Amino acid sequence: EAARERERADDAQLVHLVRAMDDCERTANELAERLAEWAGSRFDEVAPGIEGARAVADREPDGETDRRVVSLAERVVDLGAERDALAAAIDRIAPAVAPNLAEMAGPELAARLIALAGGLEPLAKKPAGTVQVLGAEDALFAHLSGRAPSPKHGVIYTHEHVRNTRPEDRGSAARAFAGKLALAARADHYAGERRPTLHEDLRKRMATIRARAEDDEGDEEVGDRGSAHDTEAADE
Amino acid sequence: EAARERERADDAQLVHLVRAMDDCERTANELAERLAEWAGSRFDEVAPGIEGARAVADREPDGETDRRVVSLAERVVDLGAERDALAAAIDRIAPAVAPNLAEMAGPELAARLIALAGGLEPLAKKPAGTVQVLGAEDALFAHLSGRAPSPKHGVIYTHEHVRNTRPEDRGSAARAFAGKLALAARADHYAGERRPTLHEDLRKRMATIRARAEDDEGDEEVGDRGSAHDTEAADE
Repeated sequence: EAARERERADDAQLVHLVRAMDDCERTANELAERLAEWAGSRFDEVAPGIEGARAVADREPDGETDRRVVSLAERVVDLGAERDALAAAIDRIAPAVAPNLAEMAGPELAARLIALAGGLEPLAKKPAGTVQVLGAEDALFAHLSGRAPSPKHGVIYTHEHVRNTRPEDRGSAARAFAGKLALAARADHYAGERRPTLHEDLRKRMATIRARAEDDEGDEEVGDRGSAHDTEAADE
Repeated sequence: EAARERERADDAQLVHLVRAMDDCERTANELAERLAEWAGSRFDEVAPGIEGARAVADREPDGETDRRVVSLAERVVDLGAERDALAAAIDRIAPAVAPNLAEMAGPELAARLIALAGGLEPLAKKPAGTVQVLGAEDALFAHLSGRAPSPKHGVIYTHEHVRNTRPEDRGSAARAFAGKLALAARADHYAGERRPTLHEDLRKRMATIRARAEDDEGDEEVGDRGSAHDTEAADE
């Protein structure tokens, strides 16, 4: 019971961490854009983003206005460092809160899924189809009001299992990945220990999907393109 | 010619300063909101805004997550301090760039009007009616597309000449104030020196408008309310 209590506390902290990280990144980028415009009016050229801010922060200010430009650059650099420190904390805490989910999705995406669901318990109770489109709420709403096709993936798109799969296989990859993530979340919430078969199953499923692309590449080489490997009905 | 060049450079810097100040204030508030939510889950109670962040920043962190909360609070405090330093720079630079405008509107509103117009020269070329609604572009657009009444004031609303005038006199106050601000911008751009009569004229005009409210209060005391003081045709 105390462990369950602690899990809840920890997954809530993970949610705060990932939201704070996103806010730091967003505000750093917004201020970096303002800085680049301003510093570009005073110095020769300023690269965009945090890298550009770092170069400005290293300058020796000459006069009051310069001092403000350099100081604004320091704020941008600080927010970038804060973002990185929050990411490092997530890397440490996510595997403790959700070992299977963190191993499968990586600590950041695991934290993001927990945040989107509002905690580990609500995530563990969601069907795989919902996990698949978490973070694509706008697209899902457009679909439900008849204005768009059903979204294939939400935030899981950021994972290489989905992103590095060719477009015609992406739907199957997203569905397979989301299915295992849903099981991982349940294992983490209800059992709390690593479930090796889960990871092995996913590895095999992804190898099968990737094999299609390699098959097709072979087909293409011998001029035979048309054998329909994208029979979605075969996917789980 | 060199002086004109310098003015242009300075008014552009004033525009950068006021935009950077607004961005620092906005991002500080956004991060403070995130912080209050997070810190509230760990400590007893956290006041909103930069004041709340200051209290969290003063805590002794206990563990990694605490360290991140306290560090985020420090980022908020830094951004608040940056905002204040930018405001102080504006207070110093605005009277040098636009002495009449800064005296009449205060340094910050002067800088804001210059920023909204895109520089002192474009501001000096705008008619009073445009100066009156600078910063109310959304409301003006709604008016022009027939969806709303003409806006009475834009960013000049923040000045006590408009804000501290009772609602029924606010249109006249905004019109009178904007008229003098337009003349002040022209004096600053074309002559560059203080024009005492301009400030004296505005002072008298505002005294007249304020006198209406005092008259009405007197009227009300003797039970006579109805003498129409809000004849807008009488205003310049």
